[in-house]
Amino acid sequence: MQKHIDRQKFPKKYVPYLSKYKLLKPINVNEKFSKFIKQWHPHQIAVVDDMQVLLAKLQGEFVWHDHPEIDEVFFVINGVLDIEFRDGKVTLESGEMFVIPKGVEHRPVAKNECKMMIKSSNHLGIFPTSRCDVSQWRVPLKTALRL
Amino acid sequence: MQKHIDRQKFPKKYVPYLSKYKLLKPINVNEKFSKFIKQWHPHQIAVVDDMQVLLAKLQGEFVWHDHPEIDEVFFVINGVLDIEFRDGKVTLESGEMFVIPKGVEHRPVAKNECKMMIKSSNHLGIFPTSRCDVSQWRVPLKTALRL
Repeated sequence: MQKHIDRQKFPKKYVPYLSKYKLLKPINVNEKFSKFIKQWHPHQIAVVDDMQVLLAKLQGEFVWHDHPEIDEVFFVINGVLDIEFRDGKVTLESGEMFVIPKGVEHRPVAKNECKMMIKSSNHLGIFPTSRCDVSQWRVPLKTALRL
Repeated sequence: MQKHIDRQKFPKKYVPYLSKYKLLKPINVNEKFSKFIKQWHPHQIAVVDDMQVLLAKLQGEFVWHDHPEIDEVFFVINGVLDIEFRDGKVTLESGEMFVIPKGVEHRPVAKNECKMMIKSSNHLGIFPTSRCDVSQWRVPLKTALRL
């Protein structure tokens, strides 16, 4: 049984969880992925305290970069992602996760399209980065579109 | 090609991402689930800045409670989870997520075993809660076992 919920308890940042009828609704990750096609455009699906949850579709090679102030976590929903480091590499398949420690240079590479869930600080965004041509990530995460 | 990586870049909190040969390894969520059977025992699989990522197996009814200081996010990996609120309910299936705003009373209920990914503040743990018999959650998240 669903009823109208108390809006006071669900302020603006929780809007994704309210239907247009103001009923609670789950955030279905695959449905969210179906709502955009552009690669390298992260979309925000949730905010959890200071963390944001983003979805992105990646294909090809990104640039070498690091995030001096924040960790970054990739969780592969569908596809295969290589995360290259200057002294190694890790390959993620669906259902696999990896945390890139702050300050560690890395380069994501996906031969075929890879659907990713990313968690990063909401305050800092995934930027600032160093050694990174930010234009490669076409929407800075700080201003990621909300789905 | 994997090589030994620089331990300095991967201090203690990143140990889950290093194999015994000090090679990078992905965190495979299903493999992690296979390593424990106890329900209501959250296990930490990663730390991302101030956030921890936990896995838990739930079955049955939890108690009504809230988390006054932190949001909580549930992501269902396998199974079905109801999150009851005092004035509504949301049902999550595999691949669905929901954020419970801080201070909102809720009660997780799973008819059959449900495998969950939980993200919560690493500093606060999921506790302190109010109105909660903490013994129901048999391992406080602050001291969740690391897988």
